[in-house]
Amino acid sequence: MNPTVGPPPCRIAVDCMGGDHGAKEVIAGTALALDDIRAHDKIILVGNIAEIEPLAKKSRIAAHPQIELQHAPEIIRMDDKPMQAIKSKKDASMMVALEMVRNGGADAMLSTGNTKVLVGAGTLKLRPMPGADRPALAAIMPHLTGHFILMDVGANPESTPLHLMHNAVMGALYANAALGIAKPRVGLLTVGTEESKGGERINQTHALLKKLGGEINYAGPVEGFDMFDGEVDVVIVDGFTGNVLLKSVEGMFYMMQDLARKKTGRNPLYLAGALAFSPVLRGIKHHLKPERNGGAPLLGLGALVMKAHASSNRNAIRNAIRLGREALSHNLTAQMKDALARANTLAAAN
Amino acid sequence: MNPTVGPPPCRIAVDCMGGDHGAKEVIAGTALALDDIRAHDKIILVGNIAEIEPLAKKSRIAAHPQIELQHAPEIIRMDDKPMQAIKSKKDASMMVALEMVRNGGADAMLSTGNTKVLVGAGTLKLRPMPGADRPALAAIMPHLTGHFILMDVGANPESTPLHLMHNAVMGALYANAALGIAKPRVGLLTVGTEESKGGERINQTHALLKKLGGEINYAGPVEGFDMFDGEVDVVIVDGFTGNVLLKSVEGMFYMMQDLARKKTGRNPLYLAGALAFSPVLRGIKHHLKPERNGGAPLLGLGALVMKAHASSNRNAIRNAIRLGREALSHNLTAQMKDALARANTLAAAN
Repeated sequence: MNPTVGPPPCRIAVDCMGGDHGAKEVIAGTALALDDIRAHDKIILVGNIAEIEPLAKKSRIAAHPQIELQHAPEIIRMDDKPMQAIKSKKDASMMVALEMVRNGGADAMLSTGNTKVLVGAGTLKLRPMPGADRPALAAIMPHLTGHFILMDVGANPESTPLHLMHNAVMGALYANAALGIAKPRVGLLTVGTEESKGGERINQTHALLKKLGGEINYAGPVEGFDMFDGEVDVVIVDGFTGNVLLKSVEGMFYMMQDLARKKTGRNPLYLAGALAFSPVLRGIKHHLKPERNGGAPLLGLGALVMKAHASSNRNAIRNAIRLGREALSHNLTAQMKDALARANTLAAAN
Repeated sequence: MNPTVGPPPCRIAVDCMGGDHGAKEVIAGTALALDDIRAHDKIILVGNIAEIEPLAKKSRIAAHPQIELQHAPEIIRMDDKPMQAIKSKKDASMMVALEMVRNGGADAMLSTGNTKVLVGAGTLKLRPMPGADRPALAAIMPHLTGHFILMDVGANPESTPLHLMHNAVMGALYANAALGIAKPRVGLLTVGTEESKGGERINQTHALLKKLGGEINYAGPVEGFDMFDGEVDVVIVDGFTGNVLLKSVEGMFYMMQDLARKKTGRNPLYLAGALAFSPVLRGIKHHLKPERNGGAPLLGLGALVMKAHASSNRNAIRNAIRLGREALSHNLTAQMKDALARANTLAAAN
């Protein structure tokens, strides 16, 4: 393939520190991701060199032509407060990776670290994208026959109707890039599909979304039931409810797994049944499993920031890198900027 | 048993109309519930006599000494607006059942009808309980080793910190009555357990709950993950998020069931495995199934109002009646009034 006709090379800075498993899983996931990216793409591993270099050697990628290492001695911790961390931990791996994106040394960054610090520092260093006020996290969730985008899953717990309208515009473009859906149906999550239910925030958001006309494919209000039926491709909700939902669905999944184990116990008939049935159970797990869709972009910033779950294993990291590259090669940030400008004009008109 | 030393008789008015299955399942469920209530309790079936009398005869309870029939010709529909319905449908079964509670003809009522009208008409006819401003719906949800109370699941989508504090006090008493837990641990659902996460509403509610001291057993903020682990017995959340959560968890449950069916298909090995494994699957389903805990009381009104899911089958109705009787025999409304008075005093102190 001639690189001059394909999309430009992607350089992704990967913050190796601050997740639950430390640099080990992040670097192992990066090694796996090298199979997914193109020959001229690059991944920059950011972290304490004394820690990341041996791990990169162990994963046999230390001398790989598409891998670079960037030293950053400090670590953002899960209990760090955003403003304090931004001021006092300039050498932290998360800050260094963001700084590389700001000064053009990378096109995107990925972190498994403290979400609140990432949102705060990302907003400060990369600025909100023109047309958006606050970034939002977009997660990929399973439904009966495929997947949908749920956003915001936790960047902005106090979303306003205008924030939610921006998220609808960005979420539709992300569904196109990440799920390959041409005209994604966008639903507004609420407590009842009749108008007037759900309170003022929902009413105002609904009115704004209707004003967008053909700019997005707005399917109207949806309820929790509808989400998993696959009735829409993008579900818009405030960052508080979205985060609670994301974690609850995950918690419920693990509860069901534990219940099945507990009830199976050592009963030989149940064990035999579970064994015969196991391809079905594995298939369901594979369809539902969070790691398949490990990364959530923080949409609405001047450049692409990917957040992966703090507990991400190597497969989740690999998938987050793949999603990041997908978004970059779709030129998602520029597309969103244009769409937000059109949407804001439509929303401001009478 | 000598009725003079036991709790006083309970009279429950059951709104037979307005649910998805009409009066049929409601009356069949009432027939089943006669096995659970005591000999001096009464159930009053409210609905169009031309419809409910034949159904009561079919269920062989028309002449039962503990059953009464009350004619109410009109029906509240799912798309009725609260204020309009309250004004123009005075003869609707829901209104007549509420009116019976107001004028002392019944101690509690149960409806499968329009939630928004039930909340509006219940508040208007029965008034908020002294010390509470807005009613809240309390659902019973499964966790790994038992059940917990989730509230508010949809009565008040715009809950304030004070509403949430009242809900915590009422939810703890309901957990005691419905789940038999002596000192229920109460958690505040949020997006991260560090203080300062979750926005202003969460911060203020957290501060109020801490002021209650020993009045409730406050366990602090909890996340979606923790809920299904059984870390707390009562989970407090605003009515918007709670309703979305309730419906999403149900939607996810049905999605998993459908996925299992689809993946099993007609493969004989999978079918055999599923058969051998079926007691485990049935056990899980029984533990999770919404109908087991079909009724949610609307707590915070002057008298007890029970809401059952519009799609309730006879088992769900039976359980809703059982829960209602449980609440009445614990004298829940009076207990809540006293506890709210103490909590409001504590919250108002510096």
